[in-house]
Amino acid sequence: MKNFEFYNPVRVFFGKGETDRVGKECRKYGKRILLSYGGKSIHQSGLYDRVKKNLEAENLEVFELSGIQPNPRITSVRKGVEICKKEKINLILAVGGGSVIDCSKIIGAGAFYGGDPWDFFTKKAQPTSMLPLGTILTLAATGTEMNHNAVVTNDETGQKWAVVDPHIFPTFSILDPENTITVPRDQTVNGIVDMIVHVFEQYFHPTPETLLQDHLSEGIMQTIIETTPCLLAHLDDYNARATIMWCGTLALNHLVSTGVEDDWATHNIQHELSAIYDIAHGAGLAIIFPQWMKYVLDAIPGKMARFTEKVWNIPRNGKTDGELALVGIERTRQWFHEIGAPVSLGELQIGSERLEEMAHNAISRGPLGTTKKLGESDVLQILKMSLS
Amino acid sequence: MKNFEFYNPVRVFFGKGETDRVGKECRKYGKRILLSYGGKSIHQSGLYDRVKKNLEAENLEVFELSGIQPNPRITSVRKGVEICKKEKINLILAVGGGSVIDCSKIIGAGAFYGGDPWDFFTKKAQPTSMLPLGTILTLAATGTEMNHNAVVTNDETGQKWAVVDPHIFPTFSILDPENTITVPRDQTVNGIVDMIVHVFEQYFHPTPETLLQDHLSEGIMQTIIETTPCLLAHLDDYNARATIMWCGTLALNHLVSTGVEDDWATHNIQHELSAIYDIAHGAGLAIIFPQWMKYVLDAIPGKMARFTEKVWNIPRNGKTDGELALVGIERTRQWFHEIGAPVSLGELQIGSERLEEMAHNAISRGPLGTTKKLGESDVLQILKMSLS
Repeated sequence: MKNFEFYNPVRVFFGKGETDRVGKECRKYGKRILLSYGGKSIHQSGLYDRVKKNLEAENLEVFELSGIQPNPRITSVRKGVEICKKEKINLILAVGGGSVIDCSKIIGAGAFYGGDPWDFFTKKAQPTSMLPLGTILTLAATGTEMNHNAVVTNDETGQKWAVVDPHIFPTFSILDPENTITVPRDQTVNGIVDMIVHVFEQYFHPTPETLLQDHLSEGIMQTIIETTPCLLAHLDDYNARATIMWCGTLALNHLVSTGVEDDWATHNIQHELSAIYDIAHGAGLAIIFPQWMKYVLDAIPGKMARFTEKVWNIPRNGKTDGELALVGIERTRQWFHEIGAPVSLGELQIGSERLEEMAHNAISRGPLGTTKKLGESDVLQILKMSLS
Repeated sequence: MKNFEFYNPVRVFFGKGETDRVGKECRKYGKRILLSYGGKSIHQSGLYDRVKKNLEAENLEVFELSGIQPNPRITSVRKGVEICKKEKINLILAVGGGSVIDCSKIIGAGAFYGGDPWDFFTKKAQPTSMLPLGTILTLAATGTEMNHNAVVTNDETGQKWAVVDPHIFPTFSILDPENTITVPRDQTVNGIVDMIVHVFEQYFHPTPETLLQDHLSEGIMQTIIETTPCLLAHLDDYNARATIMWCGTLALNHLVSTGVEDDWATHNIQHELSAIYDIAHGAGLAIIFPQWMKYVLDAIPGKMARFTEKVWNIPRNGKTDGELALVGIERTRQWFHEIGAPVSLGELQIGSERLEEMAHNAISRGPLGTTKKLGESDVLQILKMSLS
């Protein structure tokens, strides 16, 4: 185990009906609220009206930023920052999935910065503070509701980059599983892939002596694997939605990565896929992760063998670590397929035309990963393996 | 899963050498520090000198409260509060185990209260604030370094009671496993029993649909069970000390009890044992917990059967839940015995003389537990079962 610092001050309100505490919670931080959200889905589900009514009952003055897209754009951030500065906003209330929340984190940080908020991504500047941020999560996936990460796309340059900074934790997050009941099957699957790959990327790493973190990660993976069939059979099952929602949060609140050299190579490669083809994040991860596993297998065969035994309950039966690992990798790929995620670029009609470009972009800020340091040719090889 | 609120803002610094950041961390909160600790052990280990040097290097003015005993007394709290008020202390630095930290939490809260700090325990008053509190943990056991609990004994009345309040989280905690290397075998064992029973008490409960919490709890239990033999064979093994230390913290930072009706009956019964016989907390827990399991078995046979399979890796082999549960209970008791903990009151020369008194005191604030509500006669029965 490596030395680490752990700090996570997000206040979580979890469960049925918790949505209705939003007005009273927001009121604690002031009267001028920026309500940020995506598009029609919160109107269709009735959540928009419910939240508005709740805020108005506390006599809060509500400003709005709508139209935040999946893979949120820096142009939305700039719009939000302008409103915050002009209207002297006291708290941002982000109602939506990871994109809305990520975008709102950077808006909240941008409100304290004189320059362009894209500077936070190029490292030209660092956040120094953030407006209080409340969230109402509507999609279990990214974990942003309880962490200090934000991913935003620069629509001018096509770069999809992340900021990780201790100033951008949400102040509070309302996790009401009923707000995810209407999420369609494909988005539900993408969210599940995203969260389990988050755990994978904190579990497959080169750090020795991380037994507790291994067990905790395996516990989250097993819970996701055991719950998913039930959820996909009954998309309106409250208990399954609740379990998956809390899994998504704990998958990336940075607890399971304490003391480990986590390896985010797959997420970085996937961001390039999304930037060029605008495919769902979860879809890209399901395609690339098993190929990444094969590519780095010889660096951590013991860990991958353990994974096969503990998470997939597949006995060793005399196999070497490497042989058992291959069984686990194949089982992982098969599971992605079973739950309805794509497992090759070909399934999405993506050919080899732009693989070089993606590989080149993926390592533009340096080599990727910790298990094996991946350069451009390594990334290209993983992308080629992902074709079919 | 029940609705819940989760909030834990403690900043943890974990690992070898982290002790030396104490001066710089304390300095952030002001210049006047109350250093609170127990007795000779931190002098013998050299930790006292190291901390003092570190504080002095930052030109901090250090006041001292020493002599805080195991099962800390309200009289120590009162002394500490007096120093804080008189010397206008900016931060309390607690160096020690659970007793020193618990005592310091109530001192920090008492500094903002005009009455007697025992009022927090009788519910006559509630904490409204706490002085910033830093901790350097020297014993892996109670989890107080990352939670908002404190247990203090009233030396006049013999009551050993708890306060759980959102104002009494430590501000930061330094978890340097090297500070636990010199902990003797018996205290190491007591700490291990304490932490695993914490997980038990949040795992054996009547709430349905808690799959994620179950897996996480099982992960911590398995880690403790797998690591303990190695640690007891090599008390100076850094990796084993580090794993056990992080287990102790996560066992009671209230993450694994999110959404469950945790059942603290055993801890409450044990507090009465400690109050009368002054036995080690872990010893009392190892004796009582398996008997509590037997006594409530018929309320949650499925959970206890799951425990036997998942944590002890004992296959069902056609047994009913109840039969399998009994195997798991016996295995738990045997494990306590194997690691050197007592498993009967008889082993500690405690007879039946004062069982009625303890049972009476245990339920003085109402019946105990959630799995089964335990009244005086139930507690007496469990104590009788614990005799041999």
